[in-house]
Amino acid sequence: MTSQYKFQGWLGLDPSSAQGKMQWKEYEPKTWEETDVDIKVTHCGICGSDLHTLRSGWAPTIYPCCGGHEIVGTAVRVGSKVQKNIKVGDRVGVGAQSGSCLKPECEECASGMENHCPRMVGTYNGKYPNGSKSYGGYADYCRAPSHFVIKIPDSIPSAEAAPMLCGGITAYSPLKNNGCGPGKKVGIVGVGGLGHFGILYAKALGADSITAISRTSTKKSDAMSLGADKYIATDEDPNWAKHHARSLDLIVSTVSSPSMPLEKYLQLLRTHGQFIQVGAPEDRLPAFNVFSLIQKGSRIGGSAIGAPHEIEEMLELTARKGVKPWIQERPLKEANQAVRDMDAGKARYRYVLVNEGNDAKL
Amino acid sequence: MTSQYKFQGWLGLDPSSAQGKMQWKEYEPKTWEETDVDIKVTHCGICGSDLHTLRSGWAPTIYPCCGGHEIVGTAVRVGSKVQKNIKVGDRVGVGAQSGSCLKPECEECASGMENHCPRMVGTYNGKYPNGSKSYGGYADYCRAPSHFVIKIPDSIPSAEAAPMLCGGITAYSPLKNNGCGPGKKVGIVGVGGLGHFGILYAKALGADSITAISRTSTKKSDAMSLGADKYIATDEDPNWAKHHARSLDLIVSTVSSPSMPLEKYLQLLRTHGQFIQVGAPEDRLPAFNVFSLIQKGSRIGGSAIGAPHEIEEMLELTARKGVKPWIQERPLKEANQAVRDMDAGKARYRYVLVNEGNDAKL
Repeated sequence: MTSQYKFQGWLGLDPSSAQGKMQWKEYEPKTWEETDVDIKVTHCGICGSDLHTLRSGWAPTIYPCCGGHEIVGTAVRVGSKVQKNIKVGDRVGVGAQSGSCLKPECEECASGMENHCPRMVGTYNGKYPNGSKSYGGYADYCRAPSHFVIKIPDSIPSAEAAPMLCGGITAYSPLKNNGCGPGKKVGIVGVGGLGHFGILYAKALGADSITAISRTSTKKSDAMSLGADKYIATDEDPNWAKHHARSLDLIVSTVSSPSMPLEKYLQLLRTHGQFIQVGAPEDRLPAFNVFSLIQKGSRIGGSAIGAPHEIEEMLELTARKGVKPWIQERPLKEANQAVRDMDAGKARYRYVLVNEGNDAKL
Repeated sequence: MTSQYKFQGWLGLDPSSAQGKMQWKEYEPKTWEETDVDIKVTHCGICGSDLHTLRSGWAPTIYPCCGGHEIVGTAVRVGSKVQKNIKVGDRVGVGAQSGSCLKPECEECASGMENHCPRMVGTYNGKYPNGSKSYGGYADYCRAPSHFVIKIPDSIPSAEAAPMLCGGITAYSPLKNNGCGPGKKVGIVGVGGLGHFGILYAKALGADSITAISRTSTKKSDAMSLGADKYIATDEDPNWAKHHARSLDLIVSTVSSPSMPLEKYLQLLRTHGQFIQVGAPEDRLPAFNVFSLIQKGSRIGGSAIGAPHEIEEMLELTARKGVKPWIQERPLKEANQAVRDMDAGKARYRYVLVNEGNDAKL
């Protein structure tokens, strides 16, 4: 069987593509394996990682690169060896990870931590074990190994589900895995795409209180509407760290500036508190005084997206609690402008590209 | 009742005291309260913190300062309101902490985390709630609130028990609280006073393997004799971090150099691994790439001594498993030379000052 469709999408050909200079072109998808699924893309969120990667910000990107790893669409081809309950016509998605070694001897893959597999394959700019390159969802179709293809619950609209597959899980996983829930006071640094998910999921998980932390009060009313109870504008109170010292059990930091006031964030932690960084700067974290960790027995950790079973769990919670992300739909054909607007910080809080051709046909 | 004894000891009067210029003088002890215990000091370990404090390395010290917070001796006066089972004549000790607020409304004190109480009082260079200064154990007598006075199990010699009360618990607590035991691979950075306890207690707690990490192989045979299974000499293998990547679940770092190769230590961690810093540098930790935490979901934490109940638990394990620290006894009258030798890194692995006058009389 050969595909009755072409793989084409918005390709970055060099670092300037992050400034909205992607080109619509055809490309060679992953060589088909019978464990794969082809997805006819209807929606794809724009993630900060797309920009970092298009501009070779974290490391040199292997161009051409098709961005987008918050992909929702329809399964149009399902391999004969797919073990998951996915059928042609199902509404499915794929997030930032579309591969790992999946070997029984891999301690990460064997224990539900596929997202930490040393041979983790990103949904774009990655290389599958069979040698093929991976291409993302600013496109008409996306081919991905079924292990990383997730069924979308009926009650979640596709445009809302898409950004959950990377942005949502990136915020949900560190909250869930660090005890966010009743009795806990949670802080979210940054009110952007990730941060807005942090507030939503901290609320859905039942935290006692949620403190949004941003530089200015511009986003205060949004944060409160999203579910925050308190708001710290760090540029507007020189003593913010002192005023709110020892008030939080868990902080999830979604900002990615290497000049972040890390020591002051650590002051906000209670004894045995956790500061979990999910925003990945293109530079190092600032040096900090380790006394702040020693005196309170506190920690700095990192968290990377989430394993497929965590994404399913998050979607179940989303459906059960009626979590509603704040998204703005943009036509896929205007992807370059949308990327520019994203880079300018205009998203409130996540742009979702809509492949109107594919969407209309379904 | 007035004391029948004088409080006198080796006092640091300025930062030069850390170079072995302490002076034997009388001082005014804590104003007596009926919850206090007076200890006739027979043994006192020399801790790295003593040197940091005598030289005002962490912060300006309030001189005069009597160092020493690994104190063992005999209870010679027990307040009428002491609730613990301590009687005159008992062999007791006090570690690095001799006070905290102990208020029922203090979340740390009320939940067995007295060591993290924001009003924690150090055994020297501290100030008690009643306004008195605290003085350490390079002395004939030490007065301390009974909550922080620990009974020493009969089977542990005083000279061995003394350095456990700070050095021992500083290494034991992060091991115990981060799952050191069967199934876990543990690394100990630094083979000095703290590090040697780290190896001993990782062994006593049943870790699967213990890797000692030091700059040169000078201490390799000691580390192996103490119980290590592997040894990394970082100055002698340029690719040590690569060769041992992803091999450890837990690292306890006892070194306190701000130039430590932190990113390389983090490379040694397995997925979800923990790096716990207990050595407190006089400067900041180096800046590091947060990707190393994000990719593996790993953490950097701190740990500070341990609460009284943890010290008791450690001493119980010590007695049960026959843990034997490597110590060298030095006469109290030669405290200045011992401090100089400690600063020169000559201890193998802990100097214990013996108050021979007090020891002989008992």
